Amino acid sequence: MAGKARHKQPIIDAAVRLFRQQGYAATGLAELVEASGSPKGSMYHYFPEGKPSIATAAVEEAGRRVVETLEELAAKCPTTGALLRAHAALLAGWMEKSGFRDGCPMTTVLLELAPDNVTVAEEGRKAFAARQEVLAAKLRADGFSAGEADRLAMLCTNALQGSLVLARIERSREPIEQTAEVLAQLLTIGSLSPGNAQSRDRGRESA
Amino acid sequence: MAGKARHKQPIIDAAVRLFRQQGYAATGLAELVEASGSPKGSMYHYFPEGKPSIATAAVEEAGRRVVETLEELAAKCPTTGALLRAHAALLAGWMEKSGFRDGCPMTTVLLELAPDNVTVAEEGRKAFAARQEVLAAKLRADGFSAGEADRLAMLCTNALQGSLVLARIERSREPIEQTAEVLAQLLTIGSLSPGNAQSRDRGRESA
Repeated sequence: MAGKARHKQPIIDAAVRLFRQQGYAATGLAELVEASGSPKGSMYHYFPEGKPSIATAAVEEAGRRVVETLEELAAKCPTTGALLRAHAALLAGWMEKSGFRDGCPMTTVLLELAPDNVTVAEEGRKAFAARQEVLAAKLRADGFSAGEADRLAMLCTNALQGSLVLARIERSREPIEQTAEVLAQLLTIGSLSPGNAQSRDRGRESA
Repeated sequence: MAGKARHKQPIIDAAVRLFRQQGYAATGLAELVEASGSPKGSMYHYFPEGKPSIATAAVEEAGRRVVETLEELAAKCPTTGALLRAHAALLAGWMEKSGFRDGCPMTTVLLELAPDNVTVAEEGRKAFAARQEVLAAKLRADGFSAGEADRLAMLCTNALQGSLVLARIERSREPIEQTAEVLAQLLTIGSLSPGNAQSRDRGRESA
């Protein structure tokens, strides 16, 4: 058992990478085995329930990594705006380096399997909730109420998720960084509504 | 030719529906033929370049429908905030009715095939640009500058896209409607930043 245990993580890592780049259905078990460098038998040993259980493990792993990354950034960034900008820069860098293939490690497989695969969907729900909570904690530290922090954390998470789709289509890091920038501005300098824009203009004129 | 032409649209419609619910790779040609009610030969007649060319046609069709829906709503809604709320209510209704299977008709196939399939990615880019332009026009009508309108339209589109993923995972319409609500509030009542929240509180106290 101990000798074989070393193959479990490489299988999960390969699944995260391949599901992220090409999706769940397009990735065959043989491809997973080969990409992980594991012997064929280890796949059936660790995942006796087959491919869907690999999807569950991959979403869990991807979610853990996203939260870890966000927590590391949150510890370094003074505000939620700074955190969003730093996260966007990191995501954009990964996307660019991978030829715009390394989008969100969870979204494609979740869209393919949820809601019908309840286990995968639940793993995704937990991952998104944990991810949003890192942002919500930072927003509360910025001074937002608990309710506002939750709503804004969901908005920020959804907007960055969407921007990763656009970045793939446009082969550009701009959608990610621009989305984070607009959010950071909305959170820090205040409203972009026309009334406030006029106030800002008046402020500049009278200055 | 005329006799066969009636089968092209049903194939595209079936592709939009199946790619949206289960993704591109999981949908076989035989399933597409059966779902469209078309004779097997019509598939090869209209799409001689095979399955990837059906993906291109499906993304084009889905993009056309999204823009048509948004334009109809934009004509009825007085502001961008009202438009976002109306669009979210419609999307949430479709999601609920389909058991949270009918998410975005483009995202799954785009994530599976972009950026490597350049044709599909380009069709997706055009669809998202057209969709954002409907919102940007409404934002300009609200009084935003062209630059602000473009940036906010991208934010709103990305955020709603992301909320559709969360709605599938959570089997809930709430992520869609809450995301639209937060965006509508940011666009209309002004900033949710702590400073402004305090101003709003002071305003209420002195009222």
